[in-house]
Amino acid sequence: MTSTQFPAPIEQEQSLTDRFLSAFRNHPGGVAVVTADAGKGPVALTATSVSSFSVDPPMIMFSASVRSSSTPTISKAETLVVHLLDEEDLPLAQLCATSGVDRFADTASWDRLPGGEVRFHRAASWLRSRVLQTVEVHGSLVVLAEVIEAGGRNTDSAHVPGAPLVYHARSWHALGESSKIN
Amino acid sequence: MTSTQFPAPIEQEQSLTDRFLSAFRNHPGGVAVVTADAGKGPVALTATSVSSFSVDPPMIMFSASVRSSSTPTISKAETLVVHLLDEEDLPLAQLCATSGVDRFADTASWDRLPGGEVRFHRAASWLRSRVLQTVEVHGSLVVLAEVIEAGGRNTDSAHVPGAPLVYHARSWHALGESSKIN
Repeated sequence: MTSTQFPAPIEQEQSLTDRFLSAFRNHPGGVAVVTADAGKGPVALTATSVSSFSVDPPMIMFSASVRSSSTPTISKAETLVVHLLDEEDLPLAQLCATSGVDRFADTASWDRLPGGEVRFHRAASWLRSRVLQTVEVHGSLVVLAEVIEAGGRNTDSAHVPGAPLVYHARSWHALGESSKIN
Repeated sequence: MTSTQFPAPIEQEQSLTDRFLSAFRNHPGGVAVVTADAGKGPVALTATSVSSFSVDPPMIMFSASVRSSSTPTISKAETLVVHLLDEEDLPLAQLCATSGVDRFADTASWDRLPGGEVRFHRAASWLRSRVLQTVEVHGSLVVLAEVIEAGGRNTDSAHVPGAPLVYHARSWHALGESSKIN
């Protein structure tokens, strides 16, 4: 028996888009859910782009993709709620990452704050925020907002927080002692 | 022996700032290093705020804190390099997160791209980017930039990427099978 010789693979030049997508496929993010209602009913989306960029005043930023059906509503909202999730909140993260489902069907899972904002009240943290600036690039949206009210178990410094939830390459991860390297 | 009665702890009202800090203390982020040189020498900082918000054109955002000595240089740069790191790059992440050290002392670890940008060439991914917009809030900076060139092992889709690096609550984590929950 002789070994089979396969032809050498053809070296394909990868485009900038391919390289960009490969790079970010390996870049994980903490998991959040953003809700908004610009007067025509609530929307919710799962986002891994939420971060804080100032403490005084408390400021956050996040982005919403042109591909999300929630983005047009978020772009019109004056206030919204950003929920930071931990392992206990995985079902909420999955619900708001699934297209074509009613994210508000379980009416016991959410309520409205006095300003009318939609809140998933069991989320680890919820941050009621006033939109200060939006930047739109080809339908995708960047939102900068000031946090004006905060609640949930993980906003209480006396509470021992659950394992943080991270999304990476279409999988959900929880951080803990086993993931720690230093 | 009678049991000692301690006074009930006084319920302390937590401020919005306290709640905001507690919430984000439990919000992890993928790890990146940003380098810039506005003509007066290179700076580098470790950031957990990098995310992509558009694929066409390839756009990224990140923030730099008022507390970082690199922020004034980043605010003046027209182009910069964002490096997305994996577990192999932990020493680079730690170096650029430590204040008071020369991040460029190891001259074999970095070079300059043809445009003059500083690149840590062993990083998992590096993204040469043109700054499109900056927003400053009380000295902290948000940067929106378009990626114009990308390289590094994780930008090659044929390469099996290393474990992604995540920062959370002053610890470094690597994602893998043991952290996966779904």
